[in-house]
Amino acid sequence: MPAQAIDPSAYLQAGRELTDRLLEKYLPPVSSEPKSLHEALHYSVMAGGKRLRPQLALAAYEYCGGSVKSEELPIHYAMAALEMVHTYSLIHDDLPCMDDDDLRRGQPTCHKKFGEAIAVLAGDALHDIAFELMARTGRTEPVTELARAIGTAGMLGGQTADIEAEGRQVTEEEITEIHRRKTGALIRCAVRVGAILADAPAELLSRLTIFGEKVGLAFQVIDDILDIEGDQKLMGKKVGSDSKNLKATYPGIVGMPQARRTAQQLIDEAIAVFDEGDDNALKLIALFIGQRQS
Amino acid sequence: MPAQAIDPSAYLQAGRELTDRLLEKYLPPVSSEPKSLHEALHYSVMAGGKRLRPQLALAAYEYCGGSVKSEELPIHYAMAALEMVHTYSLIHDDLPCMDDDDLRRGQPTCHKKFGEAIAVLAGDALHDIAFELMARTGRTEPVTELARAIGTAGMLGGQTADIEAEGRQVTEEEITEIHRRKTGALIRCAVRVGAILADAPAELLSRLTIFGEKVGLAFQVIDDILDIEGDQKLMGKKVGSDSKNLKATYPGIVGMPQARRTAQQLIDEAIAVFDEGDDNALKLIALFIGQRQS
Repeated sequence: MPAQAIDPSAYLQAGRELTDRLLEKYLPPVSSEPKSLHEALHYSVMAGGKRLRPQLALAAYEYCGGSVKSEELPIHYAMAALEMVHTYSLIHDDLPCMDDDDLRRGQPTCHKKFGEAIAVLAGDALHDIAFELMARTGRTEPVTELARAIGTAGMLGGQTADIEAEGRQVTEEEITEIHRRKTGALIRCAVRVGAILADAPAELLSRLTIFGEKVGLAFQVIDDILDIEGDQKLMGKKVGSDSKNLKATYPGIVGMPQARRTAQQLIDEAIAVFDEGDDNALKLIALFIGQRQS
Repeated sequence: MPAQAIDPSAYLQAGRELTDRLLEKYLPPVSSEPKSLHEALHYSVMAGGKRLRPQLALAAYEYCGGSVKSEELPIHYAMAALEMVHTYSLIHDDLPCMDDDDLRRGQPTCHKKFGEAIAVLAGDALHDIAFELMARTGRTEPVTELARAIGTAGMLGGQTADIEAEGRQVTEEEITEIHRRKTGALIRCAVRVGAILADAPAELLSRLTIFGEKVGLAFQVIDDILDIEGDQKLMGKKVGSDSKNLKATYPGIVGMPQARRTAQQLIDEAIAVFDEGDDNALKLIALFIGQRQS
């Protein structure tokens, strides 16, 4: 579908709604034991959010010719898995021993609402459900892609480096490497898993991998910008949290004007993997990420 | 191999040594970034332990005719995965917001040694590596078995119920259900994954599942007994930790003599899935669990 033909906000809203339905469907019901833990899962997962990772996976899947003409498909499991794993990372990141955040998506964080023990277990549970869903695709590649993206070579490695960089001088290369792992790896994974489930040929998978890498980096640069300049109401979390935690941020290192230029350049480079005139939903999502205010 | 022909302690030591080699092989090297996180993984995983879950998986695999005539096999990935996931559960269980334990296997617990943030991330990392290894078997069933065993219907559900039962009166049925989930589910999973990787026929898989369930329950009843009566030096952790944390324990509910009888009965029932004269390594491990002092 050409991007011009798509109303961006309607498209993104439809993707959010689909993702929300999938998440409700694949979370264990609150009525089943252990109720308190299941309640915490629903609370954190259903608190909203842009659902960009599932939407990127779906857009990549469709771009690669994957069919969505069924109620229940491997891509749907993968979409839910990606958002659950993202939520797990937020819950553990917000813990007092990590970023110690009280607010997330406009609501008290999981540990503020349910206590630390349940928050640790809720993160663990989402981590777990994500892998169960990836295995439900019937293929091992999505499991492997996810494990690598969020493991010590990816997201967990980025979080560790982020913690260890607190309070000390960090170079632009270092912060870019932290971003690549902490946020970029899972976004790249979302795009790749969508393409893999559509059986994309190697050349196409490579191009989309570059797209995912660029968009993932742009996403985190913009996150850093919004943490300084964002509207707390729109963000649903405290702004200035990075600076309070003495976190290294991209604008903190290169300055705000350069940070904006870098974000734009990364979005441009992401979109450049597509031929001119090849307007599609991946491009639309990339443009949305480039312009997001929250 | 008939159990009579096996020297139990030599057999179990060989299994421990094989597991240790596999764990060393499949953990990310300490020399690679993020070094502090990788160091914490090695510290916790290589601190020793009986390696019973991997050994049960291997024994089930061999009992079902699985070949071990190669250096690197799916069963080896599964063995390492089971121990990594077990270690992840211990690291998160020991956290201040959970059981708040200072000592594990005779050494400071992960958070005592590396701080809470790294301990949370180390548990997450092992959780992750375990799924990557399960996927490396090339089959999705082991991934699914593991996810279900340690998810909210299994281990995490048991941990939640365990926390929620603290300080209140618990029935024998409730504690048995907590044990079934908290400890039993992963032990059952170990046996099943071994059998599945050897392509065990359905009837055999069912019998071994019962074996795994009984052994898993026995293991936790004995754990509760040892927490009261065990030798702290042999255990490598503080005894009396359950009572300090107002944890419900099996002997606390039914009394010590009945707890001992239940443990013995569960071991007898586990062994009863094998014909008389069918002496094998699974039986040997069950008998060892029945007699363990640490």
